Amino acid sequence: MPALSDRALRMPASPIRKLVPFAEAAKQRGTQVYHLNIGQPDIETPPAYFEAIRAAQPKVLAYSHSAGNVSLREAIAGYYDRLGHRMGLDEVVVTTGASEALNFVFASCLNPGDEVIIPEPFYANYNAFSIFSNVKVVPIPTRIEEDFALPPIEAFEALITPRTRAILICNPGNPTGIMYPPEALEKLREIVLKHDLFLIADEVYREFAYDGLRHHSVLGLAGAEQHVIVTDSVSKRFSACGARIGCVVSHNAEVMNAVLKLAQARLSPPTLGQIGSEAVYALPASFYEGVAREYAHRRDVLLERLQQMPGVRCPQVNGAFYAMVRLPVDDSERFCQWMLEEFSHEGATVMMAPGAGFYATPGSGKDEVRVAYVLNADDLHRAMDCLEAGLKAYSGSRIDR
Amino acid sequence: MPALSDRALRMPASPIRKLVPFAEAAKQRGTQVYHLNIGQPDIETPPAYFEAIRAAQPKVLAYSHSAGNVSLREAIAGYYDRLGHRMGLDEVVVTTGASEALNFVFASCLNPGDEVIIPEPFYANYNAFSIFSNVKVVPIPTRIEEDFALPPIEAFEALITPRTRAILICNPGNPTGIMYPPEALEKLREIVLKHDLFLIADEVYREFAYDGLRHHSVLGLAGAEQHVIVTDSVSKRFSACGARIGCVVSHNAEVMNAVLKLAQARLSPPTLGQIGSEAVYALPASFYEGVAREYAHRRDVLLERLQQMPGVRCPQVNGAFYAMVRLPVDDSERFCQWMLEEFSHEGATVMMAPGAGFYATPGSGKDEVRVAYVLNADDLHRAMDCLEAGLKAYSGSRIDR
Repeated sequence: MPALSDRALRMPASPIRKLVPFAEAAKQRGTQVYHLNIGQPDIETPPAYFEAIRAAQPKVLAYSHSAGNVSLREAIAGYYDRLGHRMGLDEVVVTTGASEALNFVFASCLNPGDEVIIPEPFYANYNAFSIFSNVKVVPIPTRIEEDFALPPIEAFEALITPRTRAILICNPGNPTGIMYPPEALEKLREIVLKHDLFLIADEVYREFAYDGLRHHSVLGLAGAEQHVIVTDSVSKRFSACGARIGCVVSHNAEVMNAVLKLAQARLSPPTLGQIGSEAVYALPASFYEGVAREYAHRRDVLLERLQQMPGVRCPQVNGAFYAMVRLPVDDSERFCQWMLEEFSHEGATVMMAPGAGFYATPGSGKDEVRVAYVLNADDLHRAMDCLEAGLKAYSGSRIDR
Repeated sequence: MPALSDRALRMPASPIRKLVPFAEAAKQRGTQVYHLNIGQPDIETPPAYFEAIRAAQPKVLAYSHSAGNVSLREAIAGYYDRLGHRMGLDEVVVTTGASEALNFVFASCLNPGDEVIIPEPFYANYNAFSIFSNVKVVPIPTRIEEDFALPPIEAFEALITPRTRAILICNPGNPTGIMYPPEALEKLREIVLKHDLFLIADEVYREFAYDGLRHHSVLGLAGAEQHVIVTDSVSKRFSACGARIGCVVSHNAEVMNAVLKLAQARLSPPTLGQIGSEAVYALPASFYEGVAREYAHRRDVLLERLQQMPGVRCPQVNGAFYAMVRLPVDDSERFCQWMLEEFSHEGATVMMAPGAGFYATPGSGKDEVRVAYVLNADDLHRAMDCLEAGLKAYSGSRIDR
C-alpha cells in the first residue's frame, strides 16, 4: 500500500476529537452535555438570510463568478466602507469560509518551509492550514498573567529569520478573547514595515467587542496597505457558520490577483450561501449591537462564575466569545475527558476544549481550557454549576478540599 | 512590498481568462455569444434540490459534521451501492466540490516535489491544484488521432521515477470526452500495483455515457482497493455546479483518515448544499437516463456538424460533454480571440477554450479547442453555424478557399 504524505502524517487531530466519543457516550447515558467546546453560536441566523434564498428561485444552480457575485462583493465593500475602509471590488475575493481564505493567503504569500509568526495560544486550525501549505508556524508565547497581550517588538525580532514571511493574528482573538488596542497594531505595523513581512489578520469576530471598546482593523494601518491582508467570514457575525462564505480583503493588487487565480481553480464559492450572505450584509448596525449586547451579558456571567471558583484564573476578555481559562487540575485533557466519562451534576456535564491544542510549544496549556460562551445565560449558569462541582470532585484537582 | 510565493507566481490563469474581456465587449456590442467554453450545463437543477432546502427551515445555519451530514453520506453510499460498490460511511467524506476533494487527496498522498502522472490533455485546473500543493505534474501524452486512448503500460513506466506517487485520470474525460474501457482500467491497475502508486480517478461525469457504453469505476478494480481514490461531485450529475458539494471515496482507511483531518480543519462543507444534494441523490435512475439522452443528442449534433467542416478533426467522444477538436487554424488562442473580437455571424459568435491550456507539454494543443456541448441542440446548431463561418473568414485559416 502506498504511504501517506508527510503532511498527512503530521496533520493534527482537532483538540476535541478524542473527546467526541465520550460526549456521545454521555448523551447515550441520558446526561445533558453543555457544549462550550466549539464556536458554534446558538443565536438565530437572521431570517433575511433564508428569505433571500427562498426568493431567488434559480432554474439552474450555476457557478458564480470565481471571486464571488459582484452584488455580494458590493455588499461587502459597502460594509467595509461603513467601517471606514474603502475597498474596491477587486480588493475583495469571496471564499468558502475564512478557512479557504487563509489557505489562499498562505499559498499566495508563503513558500514551503517559510515561517509565519503567530501569537500563542492560537486557533488550532492555523496549525492544520500551515501543514496543508507546508509552512512552518513559529509561535510567539503570550501569557495568561498578562491577559495574553501582544509581546514587545523585541520578542518578535528575536524570532525573525530569513524564512519569516508573515505575522498572523486573530483579532479579537480565538481562543484568548483579547482585542488588540491601537498601540498593539502600531507595533505590528512597525515590525512588518521594517522587516518587509505580510501582516495577516483574521478579523471574523470584529463586531464581538465589549466594555465600550471599538475594534481596530489592520486595514487602518496607514503606510502598511501593501502588507496587510484580512481574512473574514459571515459565520460568527451573522450566526451563519454553515453558509461557508468568507473573503480575503487587501489593498495589495498582486496578492489579490494570486488569490483570484486560486479562486478560479476551484471555480466558485457556494451560490445560495452568497445570496443569503448578501441579504444579511444589508442589516442595520442595530443587528450587530443586539448580538454584541447578548454576548457581553454571557461574558459577564462567565467571568463572574469563574472568579468565584477557587484556583481558577480567567484573564480579562473583551472580544470574540472565548476565554482561555486556567483550571486547578493536573491535566486539562484528562479533566475534560473525566467530566464527560465519569462525572455528572444534576444530570448534566460540560464539554470544553483542552488548552494544549491551542499551543505549538510543547507542554504549554496543559492546565488550561478554551471556553466558548456560545450558550444563553441560563445554560451557561448550569454549565458553570457543572464545572464548579466537577472541579471539587475531580481526583486530579489541585484545590484544597 | 513583500514578494509573492513561487506558487503564486507559477499559478496559471484559466485557459479562457484572457478571452473573457473580449466576450464581454462582444456582448456590449450586442453580439450574442454562445458559450461552449465552460462546463456549466443549461439543464434545470432538479426541483427536489430547492424543495428540500425550502423545507429545511433551520433556525441556526450551523456547521455540519466535517465529513458531511450522516444522512447525506448515507445517500451517497446508497448511490454507490446501486452502482455495485459498497462503501461504508467512513469511506465517504463530503467536500466543497470535487476541487476541494482533489486538493485534500493531493495533500494526503503527495509531498512537495512528488510527481503525479496525468494523461494529457487534462482538465486545466489539475495544474493549479498541483501548484497549490507543490506537486509536479508529469504529463503522459495521448493523441487525437487515437481518440486520446490511454497509452501502453511501457509509456507510463518510462515516466515513473522514485518521486512518482500517483496516477490521476478523469473518466469520462474532461476535456477529451473519452470513456476508458475496462482494458484501460486493467492496465492502470497493473501499473499502480506493480509500482505501489495511488490511482486517483475524477469520475464526476460518470453518468454521461453514450452509445450504450457503461462507465466502469476504478472502485471495481479488485485487488487495488488500497490504491484507488475517487473524487466526485454533484455539479454535473445534477446540474448543481453552485452547490459546491463533492466527495472523496476510497476503501483506504488511512487516506480517508487523512482527508477527514483536512476536512475538520475547514470545519464543514456548505450546509444547505448538503440538504439539497441529499434530496437529488434520491432521484430514480430515469433522471440520469433522461439527462444522458439529451447530451447524447447534443453530442450527435456536434459531431455531425464538425465532420462537415473542412479541415476539422473531432475524435470519437462517448462520455462527459466535451470534445477536443482540431481546427485548421494557425493558433487556436488567436482564433478564439478573433471570433470574439472581430467576427460575428448573423449577430452571434461562439466562445471556446483554446487547447494549449489543457496541455503541460509546451507547444501542444495550439491548433485545438475544447468544446463543451452544454447548450441545447438549437443553440448548438447556431454556434456551429458561427464556427463554420468563422473558419472560412479567419485570415489564419489553413483551409483552401
